[in-house]
Amino acid sequence: MKPTEPPTLLTAANELRAGRLTPLALVEQCLAQIERFEPHIKAWVLIDERTARQTARQMGDEIAAGQNRGPLHGIPLGIKDIVDVAGWPTRAGSSLRSDLPAERDATLVARLRAAGAILLGKTVTTEFASFDPPPTRNPFNTERTPGGSSSGSAAAVATGMCLGAVGSQTGGSITRPASYCGVAGCKPTYGRVSLSGIVPLSFHLDHPGPIARTVGDLAAMLSVMAGYDANDPISVDQPSCDYLAACEQAPAPRLGLLEEFFLSGASAEAREATCAATDRLRDAGATVRTVTLPASFADVIAQHRTIMAVEAASDHRDVFRQHRDQYGPNIARLIEEGLAATAIDYARALAHQARLRRDMLACFAEIDVLVTPATPGTAPGAETTGDPKFNSPWSYTGFPTVSFPCAVARDGLPLALQLIGRPWQEAKLLAAAAWCESYLHAIRNGMFAIGEVG
Amino acid sequence: MKPTEPPTLLTAANELRAGRLTPLALVEQCLAQIERFEPHIKAWVLIDERTARQTARQMGDEIAAGQNRGPLHGIPLGIKDIVDVAGWPTRAGSSLRSDLPAERDATLVARLRAAGAILLGKTVTTEFASFDPPPTRNPFNTERTPGGSSSGSAAAVATGMCLGAVGSQTGGSITRPASYCGVAGCKPTYGRVSLSGIVPLSFHLDHPGPIARTVGDLAAMLSVMAGYDANDPISVDQPSCDYLAACEQAPAPRLGLLEEFFLSGASAEAREATCAATDRLRDAGATVRTVTLPASFADVIAQHRTIMAVEAASDHRDVFRQHRDQYGPNIARLIEEGLAATAIDYARALAHQARLRRDMLACFAEIDVLVTPATPGTAPGAETTGDPKFNSPWSYTGFPTVSFPCAVARDGLPLALQLIGRPWQEAKLLAAAAWCESYLHAIRNGMFAIGEVG
Repeated sequence: MKPTEPPTLLTAANELRAGRLTPLALVEQCLAQIERFEPHIKAWVLIDERTARQTARQMGDEIAAGQNRGPLHGIPLGIKDIVDVAGWPTRAGSSLRSDLPAERDATLVARLRAAGAILLGKTVTTEFASFDPPPTRNPFNTERTPGGSSSGSAAAVATGMCLGAVGSQTGGSITRPASYCGVAGCKPTYGRVSLSGIVPLSFHLDHPGPIARTVGDLAAMLSVMAGYDANDPISVDQPSCDYLAACEQAPAPRLGLLEEFFLSGASAEAREATCAATDRLRDAGATVRTVTLPASFADVIAQHRTIMAVEAASDHRDVFRQHRDQYGPNIARLIEEGLAATAIDYARALAHQARLRRDMLACFAEIDVLVTPATPGTAPGAETTGDPKFNSPWSYTGFPTVSFPCAVARDGLPLALQLIGRPWQEAKLLAAAAWCESYLHAIRNGMFAIGEVG
Repeated sequence: MKPTEPPTLLTAANELRAGRLTPLALVEQCLAQIERFEPHIKAWVLIDERTARQTARQMGDEIAAGQNRGPLHGIPLGIKDIVDVAGWPTRAGSSLRSDLPAERDATLVARLRAAGAILLGKTVTTEFASFDPPPTRNPFNTERTPGGSSSGSAAAVATGMCLGAVGSQTGGSITRPASYCGVAGCKPTYGRVSLSGIVPLSFHLDHPGPIARTVGDLAAMLSVMAGYDANDPISVDQPSCDYLAACEQAPAPRLGLLEEFFLSGASAEAREATCAATDRLRDAGATVRTVTLPASFADVIAQHRTIMAVEAASDHRDVFRQHRDQYGPNIARLIEEGLAATAIDYARALAHQARLRRDMLACFAEIDVLVTPATPGTAPGAETTGDPKFNSPWSYTGFPTVSFPCAVARDGLPLALQLIGRPWQEAKLLAAAAWCESYLHAIRNGMFAIGEVG
């Protein structure tokens, strides 16, 4: 069975606004994709057809009456199952969580709802958004992982089961699954999107963000998701903006290619794809220069692991001691590491995080965004969720990233570029990504005809 | 021997600008005060008369030539001996530090120097800015502590040995000594003044700030000390301003009195002095209402101690293991607590710090600044540095504070008010403090005639 090309979020939004499509018809299209793909892909833990149809009718009535809540009005979305949606349980991929429905929406869910989005259901997360492989499969090859931890969100968007989805990233949990599944992902600046109502993994590293088909789709979602939330101690009161408008006036960006660690640590194919893409972007008018990492970058993977382990252990300690047998081996190992860490290990990691955050700013002296391969290679087998090492440095520094497909590898699976911006400069970052995407568009479109499922 | 009333920083600045006083004459006045008081007070670890006179001549020549570097031009200052000054050693109150001179100025010292300040020398700090009593004595009663850890800075300013001094606060190390010594102190917002070139105690709690005779003097110093520093990972890129100008247009503030923990935890005399001051301010046109603390405030003292202990231990561990006998009992106990803390204790303290920082914002809904007694009572005996519990909550939340004298207690020692502002609102806070100070001025002036030394 061949996936059809599903509409992008913005294409659908235009059709809805023009009255050529109704929200209900769009929901039915998504449900048809779910019927077709879900048995093979396993992207969902809960699908609420009844509520989705009901909301779709209401949104359709509003549009028919001339109301316009913006680009998400009438758009079906999936929500990663660590995020509270009122009326649905939040299982976080674990048998230890209550089956009771959440009493209220997470702040970002309330924002999406108010913007007219239709919530189709909850998407599969790895156990507590960590590394234990989920049941979800990669739409391009069901022997392969979709990546994690936002596994269901990425796979559902790739197969058109929804037009966008909420993911979250503590290491590489947005960028990696989005890239493995041939869609786009955005990890915003740390503190940009509220964590209120989301099951925590590591409070110095957690970031919610959108997964969608295109950079423009991400911009539409982020414009709604972003914003200060007094209920979230991590949320920062920085002005956000209409990121979609920012994408529409994108100049040719100055790109900074990271060779050490990233290009040099990628598979030959990922390296070639990245270089071919940057060559093409240079031809199109972008400036491309190589940027050197600060010395403090060397420790990032180990220190990131320390912070994540300690903070996961801090949240899980009491339950873990009682129900250790109900934890998967990867999350159990992480928690055990955190329980064994000294306060000084953790203090030094936090001091290093602050230092690297500052040191990395110097990389942007002569460029707009950094460019790397989004992952070291294509999706590996389903016994793993893949290696997040190209993404966790940005979860650690809190710098915003956008990834989008740039090539198809010989194994038929997608490869992606990762762009990194300065803190709080999502507008510039998304604009640069939209510009780059427009010149790599032919490649991206070609790719969606490739996947064979089942 | 009776202390004469030394000029305030701003008074002296006016005289200097008008040509009625030269920087050299001002330095000589300070050196005369040092000769008179220092044998009894022991506020200094280093006095560099030669360099001070040399700088004074240069600053005098500039003023004579019509140059004006601003209010600090030609003003003699003291620098707490945890802050690097090029050419002088930084001993941090410890025998473990090198005698070698610092190679370069701390960022804030470079800023003060560029603004024309004359650096007289280094002032006594408790050992590593912690709690072990220093040799310094309180100018109002040499049996009493000057408070700590910025002991020498506060005592030197109180006796006119310098017109302002740099202090630092991790618990109550600016507000407490300033209040015990009858002068004013400002602990700015966390991240407002660079920590680059300063011996750390606890990087989530450390704040440098000015100690001076009046709120206006503090404003003049903070205007120079404040500002983003790319070299300090903690420094935050927030706009600062001319705080002195802000003080000149101060409206009657809306004051929020904290009864629980603060008024109720103060001595009868400190409580009465605070209430008498707020009554007087209400009569003068201020609004005074009682503000309730958030529930999360309850844990602040214990959690503050955990963060300080772990971060002190993180910096000192290796030296401490080798040279434990050269550490004072209080700092040794702190480091031992930090070595014994688990990573999870520390993670939970940091999460609590973020939570309380957010929760405290709600206290400002209907007021401009919070008001408390600056200390639970007057300075205790010299075997302690006093209790920082009214100050460490603000080192913990990072909210800016200003303290200034408000009364003289029956033991002849000063009492002070502490005002607390919202993060980054030092302009509003200093303006409110200047307004309050102007109505309590008669009290403050009377106080300086009281002290008997030796």
